[in-house]
Amino acid sequence: MRIFVSQLNPIIGDLEGNTKKILYSLEQARLAHAELILFSELILSGYPPEDLLLQRSFVEAHAYYLEQVIAASSGLIVILGLVRQNKERAEKSLINSAAVIYDRKLLGFQDKQLLPTYDVFDERRYFEPVLKTRIWPLKGKRIGILICEDMWQHLEGNYAHDPVLDLVDLQPDLILNLSASPYGFQTLETRIEVCLACARTLKCPVILCCQVGANDQLVFAGYSTYVNKQAELQQLAKGFEEDTMLLDTEAVSTPYTFIIDPFKDLYQALVLGLRDYFVKLGFKKACLGISGGIDSALVACIAVDALGSENVLGITMPSRYNSKQSLLDAIELADNLKITLKQIPIEKPFQAYLELLQPYFVDQKFDATEENLQARIRGAILMAFSNKFGCLVLSTGNKSEMAMGYCTLYGDMCGGLSVLSDLTKQQVYILANLHKQRIPKSTLKKPPSAELKFNQLDSNSLPPYDIIDQVLQGYIEEYFSPEEISYQYQIPLDLVKQLIKRMYNAEYKRQQAAPGIRVSRRAFQAGRRFPIVQKWV
Amino acid sequence: MRIFVSQLNPIIGDLEGNTKKILYSLEQARLAHAELILFSELILSGYPPEDLLLQRSFVEAHAYYLEQVIAASSGLIVILGLVRQNKERAEKSLINSAAVIYDRKLLGFQDKQLLPTYDVFDERRYFEPVLKTRIWPLKGKRIGILICEDMWQHLEGNYAHDPVLDLVDLQPDLILNLSASPYGFQTLETRIEVCLACARTLKCPVILCCQVGANDQLVFAGYSTYVNKQAELQQLAKGFEEDTMLLDTEAVSTPYTFIIDPFKDLYQALVLGLRDYFVKLGFKKACLGISGGIDSALVACIAVDALGSENVLGITMPSRYNSKQSLLDAIELADNLKITLKQIPIEKPFQAYLELLQPYFVDQKFDATEENLQARIRGAILMAFSNKFGCLVLSTGNKSEMAMGYCTLYGDMCGGLSVLSDLTKQQVYILANLHKQRIPKSTLKKPPSAELKFNQLDSNSLPPYDIIDQVLQGYIEEYFSPEEISYQYQIPLDLVKQLIKRMYNAEYKRQQAAPGIRVSRRAFQAGRRFPIVQKWV
Repeated sequence: MRIFVSQLNPIIGDLEGNTKKILYSLEQARLAHAELILFSELILSGYPPEDLLLQRSFVEAHAYYLEQVIAASSGLIVILGLVRQNKERAEKSLINSAAVIYDRKLLGFQDKQLLPTYDVFDERRYFEPVLKTRIWPLKGKRIGILICEDMWQHLEGNYAHDPVLDLVDLQPDLILNLSASPYGFQTLETRIEVCLACARTLKCPVILCCQVGANDQLVFAGYSTYVNKQAELQQLAKGFEEDTMLLDTEAVSTPYTFIIDPFKDLYQALVLGLRDYFVKLGFKKACLGISGGIDSALVACIAVDALGSENVLGITMPSRYNSKQSLLDAIELADNLKITLKQIPIEKPFQAYLELLQPYFVDQKFDATEENLQARIRGAILMAFSNKFGCLVLSTGNKSEMAMGYCTLYGDMCGGLSVLSDLTKQQVYILANLHKQRIPKSTLKKPPSAELKFNQLDSNSLPPYDIIDQVLQGYIEEYFSPEEISYQYQIPLDLVKQLIKRMYNAEYKRQQAAPGIRVSRRAFQAGRRFPIVQKWV
Repeated sequence: MRIFVSQLNPIIGDLEGNTKKILYSLEQARLAHAELILFSELILSGYPPEDLLLQRSFVEAHAYYLEQVIAASSGLIVILGLVRQNKERAEKSLINSAAVIYDRKLLGFQDKQLLPTYDVFDERRYFEPVLKTRIWPLKGKRIGILICEDMWQHLEGNYAHDPVLDLVDLQPDLILNLSASPYGFQTLETRIEVCLACARTLKCPVILCCQVGANDQLVFAGYSTYVNKQAELQQLAKGFEEDTMLLDTEAVSTPYTFIIDPFKDLYQALVLGLRDYFVKLGFKKACLGISGGIDSALVACIAVDALGSENVLGITMPSRYNSKQSLLDAIELADNLKITLKQIPIEKPFQAYLELLQPYFVDQKFDATEENLQARIRGAILMAFSNKFGCLVLSTGNKSEMAMGYCTLYGDMCGGLSVLSDLTKQQVYILANLHKQRIPKSTLKKPPSAELKFNQLDSNSLPPYDIIDQVLQGYIEEYFSPEEISYQYQIPLDLVKQLIKRMYNAEYKRQQAAPGIRVSRRAFQAGRRFPIVQKWV
């Protein structure tokens, strides 16, 4: 069977625009003489639509657009992901489903059976599962249709029930999967494993169509996948952009070997996350504070690659505590990136604040108050440019700092998007080194400093980043106990506990952070819900 | 049967502290010659523990504290809400459950059957339901145990299955309900209705123990409830504080009539929400900006009632645009409330910013940039006091403003807690008028203004608040479509659509707002999840 896989980048809630893309894909499929066209999960609304699903008029509007797709399907089998409503149900009436359309007729719906409700997924909030496996006999083929999680179970075993095993006795000729599985560092390999495992069990080809593009904090990588009957990887669609894939399940070809550099992918995920946030919101220009340090240097590279040099404005805001070298590094970076750099020293407003507060702060020592003031002045300046010229502010803090609360609320945390908030400091270094033609050598080499007081170094108030990052990995990603982390990474238990406590203490800051681009298996924002007020740690 | 209902205020995750309270309650129950003691849902961990439940060591620690309760239960039946783990299960292994303990023996567990996964509830994220209804024969009584939502279904009918109906054939003598149902304006009546309906169906008494206290954004009101066999309300525990209730299911007494003023309750909910946030975090002192307007006046009253006058610091920060009357109102309010008021004019830092930015803003008009700058200076000053003296900043914006984005991110939105963020402007007026002995008359009477430019009035940039509030009510609470709202409230459709669009456009601000105290049936923060990037509206 000749199958056309349409890997699209939908905008959440844009039924009109998404339908246009779908209709254009039908044309492409027809021109390519395909017999079947496969879309990704909830392609009509984009994934995840979140509480838009609770707005009745939103769900009801789907019918009109589904009709348009049906009307345009002549000669084609169309497998289209969308939410549908089952008004006969007692419980939640919404179903995450795939419409099966053939030649201008709606044949029926294949509903999603396993509803992920963990991490960034809230599907039980909206949908009821439908535990019904069937075969769709289409053009002489016995086709099984699964939606995302329905197939992952086969490898991961989180549910009592495995839709892939249910299909064994039904002897499908072909499995189609509609997917919207967010990018996480090094998760592509697992997805391919899932497809291979399913093909091995069912002894038939598996074709997976995945959403691409970023929606708020989530990035969808694309890389739609075709695995043949022999459970060999045959084709991957492009990563991080829209793509189509035409394949013939009868054709014989050699296995496809793919080489993907996980760090290049990570970088691409950030570029796409940034670009889509801007494009889909209708913003063109970004501004950010350029300190001369590594975080803002990396964010500037990502912004330039996402938006173009001409759309990135750097502002360097030296204070009495900044080294000359920092300013030189900022200038060199801006030159390398061909972005405009404005130099706005913050001494005057800082002085104005100090004088204003002096009568109230008599006999008080210089402390975090004065450090934070500087960061907040910088935040206010960036926001003033944002307000005046309509550019979106990028914040540049990384995950390790966010974990430790080593950042100023309403200061360097200001921004429309937090680009590195899901990258450990060590990952920041690795990515920055991939771009060392553009990032000044001194930026790459000097020890990290916030430069909010004289001779300040991160290492004065934080343990080494490799230790922080290990504790983060163990606690956030693996759910290890402090004892397990101490044992696993050979870090003194006291230090582990102290870092975890510090992490919880900064929860209040993170809950007011700008949305970040999620690139790990477990981010601090999307997919993680912790109380601010708690006494467990 | 003599039953002791222990309405406690737990701290999330404080297994040690919560167990102490539980053990003390056992003593009280024994002294009162009770036969059975009933606690609220998940009392051991506090509700909701959120992702602490994913931390294995947290769940495993429960066993130790359960043992302590069992050991202290001699002579008593104890019904204790807690999370338990069923390691044999294939799917999620956690169960929201009630331990049934009698005289130092654990008799078993009654598991929760219906898991709310909507609004602020995420129970499917953590728990598996156990659909098993049984009777517990204890001291000659046939006792049915339900956990919160298990009983609500009987009135509301959201699920396919009704645990109350399942009990009919089992002929219970008594129903016990462990509950943790968050406060919402005027929801107490519904809860009592639920108990009455259950008593009518099962022809037996219903005793409901509810959690009290605030945890982050959620307030739990208490008001534990006893309804007798004749389906008459017999007793209500106190609202908004810890309480105990001793009752005898055999005793005959007259029905209890309760008169609750919904607006006094609303005020109490805010006081408790603020107090618990501070107390449980270990903060004693609050500071806030006092503008002379109604919102900050109301917040100051709430703060004083929650923390005491001596713990509230007001700061009034006049600019070139503030009226003299505003300053007089701020002073009068502070006098009435006996709080310290500091006057810190923001002209100097404002001037410093304007001069600094002037070279970049040549030929640009005064616009929201300069308005926001003033708000951000005030935010920075409040945060400086917070940093220097360890007081928590209260932000004072209301729900109507938050809906419209009529507030400055990193400006007046700064704060550890947003006290009024779930109150419409109209509710603010009603509550403020309840406190008109303390709030200056001029504050109550003058038209709302942000005073960020000359002669500014809210009504210059916003439609009347009653219209905003109706659209809010219809769209946020009822999920009406714009057409339905226009019809229902007789507001032009264009205006409705324009307000809804404006509401979605401000989503990015709300996602960086300070946590707010949820007091409506649908807040903007807890329980509402909308994408920032979307094109539905």
